[in-house]
Amino acid sequence: MPNTDPAPAARIDELDTPAVLVDLEALERNLAEMAARAARAGVRLRPHAKTHKTTWIAREQIRHGAAGLTLAKLGEAEVMADAGIDDILVAYPIVGEAKLARLRQLATRVRVIVALDDVATAANLAAVGRSLPRPLEVYVEVDSGLHRCGRPPGSESAELAERVARLPGLRLLGLMTHAGHASRVPDVEGRRAVALEEARALVETAALLADRGIEVEELSVGSTPTAAHVAEVRATYPRITEIRPGTYVFNDANQVALGTASVADCALRVLVTIVSRPAPDRAVADAGTKTLAADLGIAGGFGLVRGHPEVRVEALTEEHPVIRIPPETPWRIGDRIEIVPNHACVVPSLADRLIGIRGDRVERAIPVEARGRNR
Amino acid sequence: MPNTDPAPAARIDELDTPAVLVDLEALERNLAEMAARAARAGVRLRPHAKTHKTTWIAREQIRHGAAGLTLAKLGEAEVMADAGIDDILVAYPIVGEAKLARLRQLATRVRVIVALDDVATAANLAAVGRSLPRPLEVYVEVDSGLHRCGRPPGSESAELAERVARLPGLRLLGLMTHAGHASRVPDVEGRRAVALEEARALVETAALLADRGIEVEELSVGSTPTAAHVAEVRATYPRITEIRPGTYVFNDANQVALGTASVADCALRVLVTIVSRPAPDRAVADAGTKTLAADLGIAGGFGLVRGHPEVRVEALTEEHPVIRIPPETPWRIGDRIEIVPNHACVVPSLADRLIGIRGDRVERAIPVEARGRNR
Repeated sequence: MPNTDPAPAARIDELDTPAVLVDLEALERNLAEMAARAARAGVRLRPHAKTHKTTWIAREQIRHGAAGLTLAKLGEAEVMADAGIDDILVAYPIVGEAKLARLRQLATRVRVIVALDDVATAANLAAVGRSLPRPLEVYVEVDSGLHRCGRPPGSESAELAERVARLPGLRLLGLMTHAGHASRVPDVEGRRAVALEEARALVETAALLADRGIEVEELSVGSTPTAAHVAEVRATYPRITEIRPGTYVFNDANQVALGTASVADCALRVLVTIVSRPAPDRAVADAGTKTLAADLGIAGGFGLVRGHPEVRVEALTEEHPVIRIPPETPWRIGDRIEIVPNHACVVPSLADRLIGIRGDRVERAIPVEARGRNR
Repeated sequence: MPNTDPAPAARIDELDTPAVLVDLEALERNLAEMAARAARAGVRLRPHAKTHKTTWIAREQIRHGAAGLTLAKLGEAEVMADAGIDDILVAYPIVGEAKLARLRQLATRVRVIVALDDVATAANLAAVGRSLPRPLEVYVEVDSGLHRCGRPPGSESAELAERVARLPGLRLLGLMTHAGHASRVPDVEGRRAVALEEARALVETAALLADRGIEVEELSVGSTPTAAHVAEVRATYPRITEIRPGTYVFNDANQVALGTASVADCALRVLVTIVSRPAPDRAVADAGTKTLAADLGIAGGFGLVRGHPEVRVEALTEEHPVIRIPPETPWRIGDRIEIVPNHACVVPSLADRLIGIRGDRVERAIPVEARGRNR
């Protein structure tokens, strides 16, 4: 059967391909290092679990010291609540009657914090909050430079936050921002500046709010590239309370290109078989954008081939990576290689399960329970 | 519940978002037009079902006159065979013991033709063929310019095909090629040249094979952009017997950019809700690359907003499209729009089900049974 779980203790070379591998040693190292980094800096770690969408890795994050989870979609949050995760930030505006009803249900089961950036959205959430035993906790999202959701820092965000704070049914727990654009800044100094700007945007807005008599508990920042600078951020802005990195569990070719991870830190790899050698300088393997996703590489190309810095994944169609290789490369049809994807956060969305490995052995199948839960 | 099927005859505005819609009238028109085009040109239509991965649309293709299906992966072919499709081309090299065993099983149930581009691959397939009551039918893939799988046309491909033809257990049914690069050629004259080159590559190789005493029945070409030129291709090269377009069932923003489809021909659209209006010229909706995929647009951008040529999907992150709009646009949070993706063939891979609509009503849920079947 094509998609069943591998036998426990199978060797990796017994797996059929493509298979999405998770190197459990690298995963555990990544989890421990980020937890230690947050603890040293004195901030809470609330990792974004959209990266893996699995309840098993979510519980591992909690076991390693995460205080709760961040998720994008309500459907993902429901899956995590079903698995016993009891402190969840839905970092996404909840809009529409169907989702508001589901949010109400979820909030009766676990602690839920919801992000928002609009007073109309807040008013609908407030109605949910008034139907609950306690007000609904919310973060107001501030735009620190990504220019996606959120209002600009300063008076515009402070005014929104004040209106939110005065709505019966809501509790304005804090402010949040996400500098996703840090992953487009190639130099480390530039990313440090982005990390400091994330914090400054929130601290400045919180100060204006305090002038209006409103104190917030939480100032939540985060991404994997800016988390590298959390110690300095916290030293400069001690009011920051929380970070929300996501990609760090797996890392990927883009984190390697940024210098925030090494290839050895890349826990997620796709095991593929060479299926065509049509020319001396070209090989084709058996996973394309329907397994690896089409996200572009910061350094060009469509992922790294582990252990082979001399080759380049030059093109990626739906089921075919075209790999440019030195003509003397001895790869034959049937040989196996591992591709580290450009962007790990989109790969589990394409898989029913990940295969947890240790050394050359399969240790566990990791079902991607929140795959497809985009509502 | 987030991912259950909608009630039959529900109105579209009762659907929660994001929802992947299939406009059944546009689908039926696309199916009928391509079938008629193939019939007029005198070629068999063997559509590539990787685009939709659903058994319901596959059966609709057959009902409209397709002679069989093309698929990329064995796992997809197994799903289609289970649904009663009995004539399947696996246009992909089958490599490795596990897959060869599954291919053998499949070939006992339905007609299977397998593509290959290497004599070692052929030898393994021949062993499968010798264990079957009849030889296994194969196509030799020729590279007509995509430079992915396949050998160059002419003597190199003819020599491979001759060696394949002489392997006991195989029957060399024909030659195939796929000019996927046609979708990167913006002008129609350039695409006509690519379509003619697809055919020329096969006819030239077949002639060399005939010189060696080997006649093949089938010369199979195809892609949606080159299918537009099939009448002229067949008039120039009457030996062409088969076309294999895929995208035509849905069309997409890239086909619109090429001029091979209009927006009205785009049967696949993602219904989304506006969830943020953080600036007068910016709106954010609730589906990103985890629903629409990250494939780049030929004309730039990340898809078209149906009915709104004045707006532009400027950025697409995992769950957020950032849409640049004229400041006077009256969109409010909670409003719904439909995004036509850049590349329709990757969208069903991200969904559990598509929602078939007619007018403003839901007609059927269409499960994506071959989603994730990438082995």
